[in-house]
Amino acid sequence: MAKIRLFVQGDLASKNIVELNFQQIHYLRNVMRLNPGDTITVFNGRDGEYHANIQELTKNKGNISISAQIKEQDSCPDVWLLFAPLKRDCIDLIAEKATELGASSLQPVNTRYTITTRVNVDRLTANAIEAAEQCGRLSVPEVKEARALESVIYNWNPARTLYYLDISETAEPIAEAFAKADKNTPSAFVVGPEGGFSEDERVMLAKCAFAKPISLGKRILRAETACFAALACWQSICGDWK
Amino acid sequence: MAKIRLFVQGDLASKNIVELNFQQIHYLRNVMRLNPGDTITVFNGRDGEYHANIQELTKNKGNISISAQIKEQDSCPDVWLLFAPLKRDCIDLIAEKATELGASSLQPVNTRYTITTRVNVDRLTANAIEAAEQCGRLSVPEVKEARALESVIYNWNPARTLYYLDISETAEPIAEAFAKADKNTPSAFVVGPEGGFSEDERVMLAKCAFAKPISLGKRILRAETACFAALACWQSICGDWK
Repeated sequence: MAKIRLFVQGDLASKNIVELNFQQIHYLRNVMRLNPGDTITVFNGRDGEYHANIQELTKNKGNISISAQIKEQDSCPDVWLLFAPLKRDCIDLIAEKATELGASSLQPVNTRYTITTRVNVDRLTANAIEAAEQCGRLSVPEVKEARALESVIYNWNPARTLYYLDISETAEPIAEAFAKADKNTPSAFVVGPEGGFSEDERVMLAKCAFAKPISLGKRILRAETACFAALACWQSICGDWK
Repeated sequence: MAKIRLFVQGDLASKNIVELNFQQIHYLRNVMRLNPGDTITVFNGRDGEYHANIQELTKNKGNISISAQIKEQDSCPDVWLLFAPLKRDCIDLIAEKATELGASSLQPVNTRYTITTRVNVDRLTANAIEAAEQCGRLSVPEVKEARALESVIYNWNPARTLYYLDISETAEPIAEAFAKADKNTPSAFVVGPEGGFSEDERVMLAKCAFAKPISLGKRILRAETACFAALACWQSICGDWK
């Protein structure tokens, strides 16, 4: 059974030939020391998972021949993660862990107290792809360009519940909020930066019928920890960990 | 309001003088540039949290005078985390996040497929202390010396439920297992290494009435992600996030 699993762009169907990109060529050839004829598995987020045989693998060119399907495409639960950009290590960790925890979309949002506004979407996408390859997902969460929180809220589709992590007394304990939720409602979380949301941002969120303040207890979690905790709780009660 | 928060060893009561260790002296003096007369807050895991005034702060000696109590001592929920040692970055992350997520004890356990058996208890303790200082906890989880899983199981007090993360079909979805649990029962999690538990280990665990297999869904979580997810779900349903 092949253990190497790659996310590819091309269409997957038996006998299709799919091109590999330079990173994949380097990985298969120089890191894993594979050769033409060796088998890997591939997915593309649309066609499920397939066995594939390496056809050509030179320094500059690599392609694979798709063979039998292993799994049909499934869908991840519809849950987005919105987060204030953090320093490099932490934001990389968010992309990796949120992918493992089944987020379907990653949206950096700039807030009043955000300390950094530079987000490298390509690097976050690479982290998400690597995590998806390792955790067995058949899809990679979409990593979006950073946007201002106000703009995201202004354009929000109210059919999607937006849970915001809040330390105020009125925030509902997370498991209670999820227990009440309609399990089929698309959901999202927004996690503020280290300094939390500003008073203006809290007022803005409180005015939105689709936005619900939730609490993760009294210990002050780092922003990335709050992201993991919220996604894990959601998957366990509303998502596909049931 | 002082924002610097330190974990100290000495007894806390108004007018007590508490010695600082060399790391704390360096931190207050060289990193935070504090001086005698400045105020910090301190906790020791027994006496709650107090304001304290720096009395002496030289290169080699530092002590503080304890003033008013800010918070009475509380107790964290009684939940332990047992985990197979991982490479350095990951195990550091476990100590930090498990502390934020309210674990009361951290026990490294060597299992059949554990890839590394070296555990630096002092470094893990330092990570746990730093996380406790930052997250507002009034206690620091105890970091224990690594032990063999068999030995830990053999000496287990059956009054404590031991949830083990398992990918088999018989494992119960995590939120369902917690919903049924008596909320006052002391709990623990054991998370295996990347290769999971061996067949022998699974058989051993399955024989223990106190051990319950739980599932975190079908995506294959990294060991450290599984630790965070299990603790977060437990706190939300059985712990103090209610």
